[in-house]
Amino acid sequence: MNHKFTILGELAELVGGEILGDPEVRISGVADLDSAGLGDISFLVDGKKISLLERSAASAVIVPAGLDNSPKPAIRVRDPYLAVARIHNYFLAEPFNATGIDPRACIGKECRIAAEVSIGPLVVIGDRARIGERVRLYPGVVIADDAVIGDEVVLHANVTIGERCLIGSRVIIHSGTVIGSDGFGYATDEQGHQIKRPQVGIVQIDDDVEIGANVCVDRATFGKTWVQRGTKIDNLVQLGHNVVIGEDSFIVAQVGIAGSTRTGRSVMLGGQAGIGGHLTLGDRVMVAAKSGVHSTVKDGMVVSGIPAIPHKKWLRASAAYAMLPELIKELREMKRELAEMKRKQSGGNEE
Amino acid sequence: MNHKFTILGELAELVGGEILGDPEVRISGVADLDSAGLGDISFLVDGKKISLLERSAASAVIVPAGLDNSPKPAIRVRDPYLAVARIHNYFLAEPFNATGIDPRACIGKECRIAAEVSIGPLVVIGDRARIGERVRLYPGVVIADDAVIGDEVVLHANVTIGERCLIGSRVIIHSGTVIGSDGFGYATDEQGHQIKRPQVGIVQIDDDVEIGANVCVDRATFGKTWVQRGTKIDNLVQLGHNVVIGEDSFIVAQVGIAGSTRTGRSVMLGGQAGIGGHLTLGDRVMVAAKSGVHSTVKDGMVVSGIPAIPHKKWLRASAAYAMLPELIKELREMKRELAEMKRKQSGGNEE
Amino acid sequence: MNHKFTILGELAELVGGEILGDPEVRISGVADLDSAGLGDISFLVDGKKISLLERSAASAVIVPAGLDNSPKPAIRVRDPYLAVARIHNYFLAEPFNATGIDPRACIGKECRIAAEVSIGPLVVIGDRARIGERVRLYPGVVIADDAVIGDEVVLHANVTIGERCLIGSRVIIHSGTVIGSDGFGYATDEQGHQIKRPQVGIVQIDDDVEIGANVCVDRATFGKTWVQRGTKIDNLVQLGHNVVIGEDSFIVAQVGIAGSTRTGRSVMLGGQAGIGGHLTLGDRVMVAAKSGVHSTVKDGMVVSGIPAIPHKKWLRASAAYAMLPELIKELREMKRELAEMKRKQSGGNEE
Repeated sequence: MNHKFTILGELAELVGGEILGDPEVRISGVADLDSAGLGDISFLVDGKKISLLERSAASAVIVPAGLDNSPKPAIRVRDPYLAVARIHNYFLAEPFNATGIDPRACIGKECRIAAEVSIGPLVVIGDRARIGERVRLYPGVVIADDAVIGDEVVLHANVTIGERCLIGSRVIIHSGTVIGSDGFGYATDEQGHQIKRPQVGIVQIDDDVEIGANVCVDRATFGKTWVQRGTKIDNLVQLGHNVVIGEDSFIVAQVGIAGSTRTGRSVMLGGQAGIGGHLTLGDRVMVAAKSGVHSTVKDGMVVSGIPAIPHKKWLRASAAYAMLPELIKELREMKRELAEMKRKQSGGNEE
Repeated sequence: MNHKFTILGELAELVGGEILGDPEVRISGVADLDSAGLGDISFLVDGKKISLLERSAASAVIVPAGLDNSPKPAIRVRDPYLAVARIHNYFLAEPFNATGIDPRACIGKECRIAAEVSIGPLVVIGDRARIGERVRLYPGVVIADDAVIGDEVVLHANVTIGERCLIGSRVIIHSGTVIGSDGFGYATDEQGHQIKRPQVGIVQIDDDVEIGANVCVDRATFGKTWVQRGTKIDNLVQLGHNVVIGEDSFIVAQVGIAGSTRTGRSVMLGGQAGIGGHLTLGDRVMVAAKSGVHSTVKDGMVVSGIPAIPHKKWLRASAAYAMLPELIKELREMKRELAEMKRKQSGGNEE
Repeated sequence: MNHKFTILGELAELVGGEILGDPEVRISGVADLDSAGLGDISFLVDGKKISLLERSAASAVIVPAGLDNSPKPAIRVRDPYLAVARIHNYFLAEPFNATGIDPRACIGKECRIAAEVSIGPLVVIGDRARIGERVRLYPGVVIADDAVIGDEVVLHANVTIGERCLIGSRVIIHSGTVIGSDGFGYATDEQGHQIKRPQVGIVQIDDDVEIGANVCVDRATFGKTWVQRGTKIDNLVQLGHNVVIGEDSFIVAQVGIAGSTRTGRSVMLGGQAGIGGHLTLGDRVMVAAKSGVHSTVKDGMVVSGIPAIPHKKWLRASAAYAMLPELIKELREMKRELAEMKRKQSGGNEE
């Protein structure tokens, strides 16, 4: 896929690591230990598994702090995942290859499209939309009227961006995701029928956000639904209208967040968690997978369960849960004994 | 977005409300308190927050019953949400602007398409499909052979309607939603392999239904999967084959309903709830978010939990759950005391 | 839909069943008991509901073992679902009708496309892709560069297949599904920002797999995410990077499986279940709907709950859960009694 190469010493410099062994080894790619071959650098995350290195054909390896020697030339770093990410991105980086606008794309009126873009066939762009530099739009992407797409954005096949929505720079959105569907808002009339509340707000996605496949981010009723800088969202996540997600957060697959909830910075929401509406989650909050959050959570708290409680408490409660049948048996037994003693006691007193 | 205007008195009449203050104030739009400006009417849902009105630049406001005066001209109503929905819809209502069939749409053979429609580029309509009056089809919509779409339907970008499916009038379906995928039905053969059971039924969506983004409604094995009039379905919901959803119901995001289950009228299913197959839920049943319903639920019941139990019982049980570790400690303590007393008692008897 | 017909005796032979009544009855289709008419064969799964047969207009019926006579000509089999699936597939089977490549499809460079295919309008196929014999691609399907599609595959409207992904033969994928989106992998840098870990692996889907609508299968970080032969996946399921699903398994709607987890053969995962990352589930494991699996599960185990525990244990624990408030009341009552007895005992001793 690429024909760059460099030497181990330069990669060590790139990631601020220490060299173990020959710094002159030539490296031209990254692979995992199983599939790495000559010229590849691989990585080991768990220092105890050093024996895996012997079996790998990698030319060099990234190893964690604490290892003093390595059977292969190595770069020692505090966080191998971070180092491998940087080195891999270095090898994959390529100058943007602008293919222009495919003649089979449909472009609206009065759009402002930057000079260097790659817009594939069967992309549809509405009227007055703006598309930044070095944007890649894959087939089937639909961008509605008045939407704004920043620089270096990648929208994968069949992504839909609703009208007036704002997408920052370096945003990546995977296939099938819908940004700017209507929020779920109704008022019940005198006959019990639902009257649609118009959803006239927008969605704003800030810089450096990545959003997975088949995600839904609803537009605000008024104002905006807002995903802030650097946040990463996995597949099949639901963000309701007027939700605000703070910076540098992680939202794992199939999480749902109901309307008007705000989360702080560096929040982590585990897979399939559900967060109720109109709540506030503080900075660095962690919600365990499958939990249901019904109330506000303070900065730094870790919560689990349905309803969510402090994680340590939940660990004990859930362990106790499995023992419930035995506990009930014990309780019944004690009750029987108690009755027996009571009988004896009163009998004893009567004697 | 629009250039209508009217006076407060007329809006009060529209929603059956009482005027507080000047009925002649000119109103040309709706906004929330924060963003409202001159000419906007805004709304207050919680009468206790009346101080918010002072800070808003809105020209008038909708207020709830119980407020006796307002710092701004106001319409007083029983349900501000309902009033604001009606007034907002009034301002947004526009005559249908038929743009016809875009030449880049692909229309099948023998279709019957009404005179006044807006069919965007890259829409695909199969053979013999029928499309009603004032229908709007956004780019990337695929309607398969023999499907029938009623009047005033809006299908957003990248919606898929399967063959022979029936969509009523005034239905709105958001992007990425799939109506009429095959139901999940197999029979296991002698070798443990799965043989597909053909899914030859349809999906019928009745009038005034709204369906969110990336929803899946499977076609019936035989007969029909059926969403009845006025029901509102949020994003990422799964309805299995032969499910029947009664009228005027709410299904919140990420709910899943397994095959052949029927729900009554005005049912509310909270986010991420799961309903087992072949069950019946009565009218006005409410299922709390994240619950798992394994058995039939009678009219008017409110249930929670996995498995779902009556909501009030669940509230007490879930509160007790968090206390389980303490309860176990107490139990152990009592057991110890009991043993001690027993020892004394028998000792006492022996003395 | 078809004009085949045959006689009951031949269908009995097809499914290895016994004839009750006239083997010469002419059959030309399959329907459920309610909608069946003259010429249809229908089916009864529960032998106790034999009275339903009287009301049906079906010409014949498939009945389960144990029934000795039938009011209609019948085929008696061990598994009516399996027999009806086979007979229905027999009636629906048709020679492949190749319509070729629609001129409005967009085909890349250097593709290898088999002679007999049906590729609809607005399908996009990337460079160097390979498409097998008798493949059907519906409108809006996007197949990226270097993907390989086997024989007799059906990709429904708006399916996306990522670059280099491998799809086996006789695979069916329903609308909106995304195969080969990036896995959710990041490394946190010194500033707390997330650095994307490149996802350079692929997805491999083996023969005879069926995948529902709006499913997401992420590509591997390195290597492959792999769904093995014969497995059936329902709608809105999430499979993380490097997940391996064994043969002949069932994954019900809205299940999520985190990265690098491997499941054995003939596994069943109930709706909305969540499986953590880096776990192993053995052969024939069953996970109840809505469960959360946090640890390895051995061959043949049935588990339920969050966290998942053996199903039988969970059944007792969840029943006890609903009784928790009563148990607490009992505990309090015993505590009171215990204190009372203690008082008496010490009083008695003091006397």
